[in-house]
Amino acid sequence: MQITFVQVLDFIGTLAFAVSGIRLSSAKRFDLFGAYIVGLVTAIGGGTMRDLMLGVPIFWMHDPFYLICTALALLWVILFSRHLIHQNNTWFIFDTIGLAMFTVTGIEKTMHAPDQYPFWAAIIMGTITGAAGGVFRDVFMNQVPLIFRGEIYALACVLGGIAYFAALELGLSTVAAGLICGAFVITMRILAVRYRLHLPILKGDETPKD
Amino acid sequence: MQITFVQVLDFIGTLAFAVSGIRLSSAKRFDLFGAYIVGLVTAIGGGTMRDLMLGVPIFWMHDPFYLICTALALLWVILFSRHLIHQNNTWFIFDTIGLAMFTVTGIEKTMHAPDQYPFWAAIIMGTITGAAGGVFRDVFMNQVPLIFRGEIYALACVLGGIAYFAALELGLSTVAAGLICGAFVITMRILAVRYRLHLPILKGDETPKD
Amino acid sequence: MQITFVQVLDFIGTLAFAVSGIRLSSAKRFDLFGAYIVGLVTAIGGGTMRDLMLGVPIFWMHDPFYLICTALALLWVILFSRHLIHQNNTWFIFDTIGLAMFTVTGIEKTMHAPDQYPFWAAIIMGTITGAAGGVFRDVFMNQVPLIFRGEIYALACVLGGIAYFAALELGLSTVAAGLICGAFVITMRILAVRYRLHLPILKGDETPKD
Repeated sequence: MQITFVQVLDFIGTLAFAVSGIRLSSAKRFDLFGAYIVGLVTAIGGGTMRDLMLGVPIFWMHDPFYLICTALALLWVILFSRHLIHQNNTWFIFDTIGLAMFTVTGIEKTMHAPDQYPFWAAIIMGTITGAAGGVFRDVFMNQVPLIFRGEIYALACVLGGIAYFAALELGLSTVAAGLICGAFVITMRILAVRYRLHLPILKGDETPKD
Repeated sequence: MQITFVQVLDFIGTLAFAVSGIRLSSAKRFDLFGAYIVGLVTAIGGGTMRDLMLGVPIFWMHDPFYLICTALALLWVILFSRHLIHQNNTWFIFDTIGLAMFTVTGIEKTMHAPDQYPFWAAIIMGTITGAAGGVFRDVFMNQVPLIFRGEIYALACVLGGIAYFAALELGLSTVAAGLICGAFVITMRILAVRYRLHLPILKGDETPKD
Repeated sequence: MQITFVQVLDFIGTLAFAVSGIRLSSAKRFDLFGAYIVGLVTAIGGGTMRDLMLGVPIFWMHDPFYLICTALALLWVILFSRHLIHQNNTWFIFDTIGLAMFTVTGIEKTMHAPDQYPFWAAIIMGTITGAAGGVFRDVFMNQVPLIFRGEIYALACVLGGIAYFAALELGLSTVAAGLICGAFVITMRILAVRYRLHLPILKGDETPKD
């Protein structure tokens, strides 16, 4: 068995997404099984949504890799619970690598789907792959999804997706486009956190009718 | 390019649904991107659920119309935030037109799906097309879905759907049945709001076991 | 028409799941239609999720049985609202029979799906069939899903699923494996409630980064 670079990135991202779900579960005092499920949903929820919408087989149902990753993430949180806070920078980097990786995966899977889709649908699928797992996690936590009002997150996926297709337009290969997309997502996220970049809050009327 | 009557109704409905999601997002202080996503999910969530359940391609993934409508809705809320409250009656009418339109679309898409479905499944799909987007919106807002305890809303879709198939039984064309269904939904909604019609609250035991 | 043993169990389980959703709806003061929808989603939500993920037609869309069961459940709650609390033991048994039944159904449907799936995917599908409806119910109630922190529930499905495939490995028939799986789920649930068995709470750091 040969381990590819892509598999390493997939492992890092899955681990980081699962850890994020499991940590929030522990703050809500979920039991071990509940924490495992939330970790799993955070890690694979976005890709599952994408595969359902593309009408293709669900990616994790033929490969125990993601279940094992989530088990490792749970073990890690149990063993290092007191030290997790000191690992925040590491987990932020891993999470960001995952976001970039999942965005590229989502775009490329859409372009290779049996049906043909326009490029903007691929960008949306990339964004869903990267960001929807966190939305499901927050819904299970019974809190407003963080991506709707926190630092720039899902928008980084959209911009990375635009960079992907801009690179293809310029005649670059899909490998180069994927790397550019990933670099874009990672850079955006680092800048967003470093400089606390937020999008403007929408100020509408305060008394919507329904 | 020729714009059909159906397309005009679809535009009005999509706009109104997106505006409803965006206005609630602004009340929750979501950022612009979050408001856009919630508006989009409110507008296309019901039809997406329907297409997933019918096993057909997702309707908006080949047509940028709905993304553009939602962008226009966001622009409108930004530009006219102070005046939206004075437009409540207009938006109520638009929302109602959308509900009627989406119900008919859901029924007809089910009847033309590759698999054959019984009439009551088409009515459910019509109701999901009309009402599920608002449920997703409310889940994202972290509040109990309004349709479960507010004015008659999803029930109007069900009754409209029954009217649709009653019309077909009477030998009317699908166009006539669609118009009757739509008129039924709109009338029900106007009566419900005008006379504050509510269904009875369910009074069960107050201490459910789980 | 001949009523099979499996149909009786399916009826009991559907009724119990719908009653659980409807009772919680009444505690939240939903209207009759909202209570019906929540009851329906509790009863059929897990199987719907399973069918979507397996890419097969949604089971209830060709059979009005589940809609009728839910209507009966609503009627029951309305008629016997004052006595429901005295029926708690009965409903617990019915709910447990449903959980067992739905787990077996989910496993067997996965093994007979057009695509081939590994045994662990079938166990997950069995667990989703049994437990996801309750998760949707709780999300609609705007509360943290009970299965993430209450008594052992979804874990009973997982262990029952393992028992199913262990039985097959030992050369037993699928009927015997189904009975063993069901007995396992029921026993686990009874023990969990009788001895208040909980999984350990996950104690991670209290200040997750996101």
